[in-house]
Amino acid sequence: MDVFKGTACYPVIKIRDGEVTKTEEQVVEEIPLTIYLNGKELVTMLASSGEENYLVIGFLATEGIIAKPGDIKKMDVDIRRGIIDVETVTGETAAEKMFLKRYLTACCGKGRSTFYFANDLLTAHRITTDITLTPQEIINYSEMLEAKSHTFRLTGGVHGGALAANGKFVCWSQDVGRHNVFDKIYGRCLVEEITTSDKIIMFSGRISSEILLKVSKMNIPIIISRAAPSSLAIDMAEELGITVIGFARDNRMNIYSHPERVIGC
Amino acid sequence: MDVFKGTACYPVIKIRDGEVTKTEEQVVEEIPLTIYLNGKELVTMLASSGEENYLVIGFLATEGIIAKPGDIKKMDVDIRRGIIDVETVTGETAAEKMFLKRYLTACCGKGRSTFYFANDLLTAHRITTDITLTPQEIINYSEMLEAKSHTFRLTGGVHGGALAANGKFVCWSQDVGRHNVFDKIYGRCLVEEITTSDKIIMFSGRISSEILLKVSKMNIPIIISRAAPSSLAIDMAEELGITVIGFARDNRMNIYSHPERVIGC
Repeated sequence: MDVFKGTACYPVIKIRDGEVTKTEEQVVEEIPLTIYLNGKELVTMLASSGEENYLVIGFLATEGIIAKPGDIKKMDVDIRRGIIDVETVTGETAAEKMFLKRYLTACCGKGRSTFYFANDLLTAHRITTDITLTPQEIINYSEMLEAKSHTFRLTGGVHGGALAANGKFVCWSQDVGRHNVFDKIYGRCLVEEITTSDKIIMFSGRISSEILLKVSKMNIPIIISRAAPSSLAIDMAEELGITVIGFARDNRMNIYSHPERVIGC
Repeated sequence: MDVFKGTACYPVIKIRDGEVTKTEEQVVEEIPLTIYLNGKELVTMLASSGEENYLVIGFLATEGIIAKPGDIKKMDVDIRRGIIDVETVTGETAAEKMFLKRYLTACCGKGRSTFYFANDLLTAHRITTDITLTPQEIINYSEMLEAKSHTFRLTGGVHGGALAANGKFVCWSQDVGRHNVFDKIYGRCLVEEITTSDKIIMFSGRISSEILLKVSKMNIPIIISRAAPSSLAIDMAEELGITVIGFARDNRMNIYSHPERVIGC
């Protein structure tokens, strides 16, 4: 599970400074994975291969279909056919209807306030934790993520994220889908019973409101990104008690919310 | 409509080389826009402000809810409340049910072949066009997009795309959402009756399968990106007759499919 095999070799015509060469190059794989819940087709996700079990568990938990891995009776992952069969303890297929509504929402947002779907969807609660970290730790995590990103350097096509504490990465995932990175990490945390409330999440991509809500659902107090946050993500982070740090690269960073967790701010 | 106002000033603590400064900085706005179709809530999109009418028209057309702007009887855009009321000529609300299924699919993909949702959703047809362009034109378009991206340089938080022909941009849009960029451009093309089949699209972001399908629906034969394509996007492009050019920057590019449209390949 730790090896990321999600690339494929494709023929490519390269043109550089006017010179044309025919060669082959690694391209990031994007595969459809269809989840069947208690015998009924639930959804198909587009994802990178690897950690499919974590992806599915994290996704089902984020969407409120399961609360813990123990709610799953049986899960068959058929990578070749791209089909994942999940049987839950309750066996409910009625969940599908609710899920459709939920998923539409999770894809697209809903409502018109800062908590545009917080009230409907998640038991969003303000995170209060006394975890702190130094600017140097933030820079270190960013550099550690960069160093991990072999596939990104190879293909330019994936996002990476890591759960970290005490200067070390506890776990790390990558995927073509920004959301999938969080589902994979969340799934692993649920399976391996890794506490998230005392850790930070380091992420390569932009922090939109949907990413911020995933962080909140995962009960993580601090998100560090190498990229930019959106206005709505910052507004939500302020209310949900999450520290948002953006542009953490090249020995600099911007702290947008709850700076009290960063020593010296 | 041509001015992009989608940024907001936020307080930020900047740390650079250990030095802490409190300042304000532009952040890209992300706003929820709820579409009501014939009186029923259809979906909420998270988007950048600006060109909301194009976004909605392009979205409804891509999703198959309308075929042309004339299918809309009335559209009220209330930016302040983030609500867009659309009345169609047919007045169908039954579309919602189909739409839910469709949208789930459009968000997440479906099925397990190259055309994982092509058969269900779009009248995907192979694009056959004799449009060609030179490597230098490709480099020029990429540099033109880069030069246009004030907001990206300001906030790091948006994607940009442009429809181009004969060395010029015909229209250009930007948004926090990758998909929204295409919906805005498509909406404008439908409203202004701009032919797309003789143009190329220049895009800042990665080419996933969903982006490729949007290009196909828009009947555009060539997509140029400054970033990477995914394997599935290349597979689909091969079958749908679309030329995919990636990493078009710094005087270089990779051509992944249908290179016959690039002179000299």
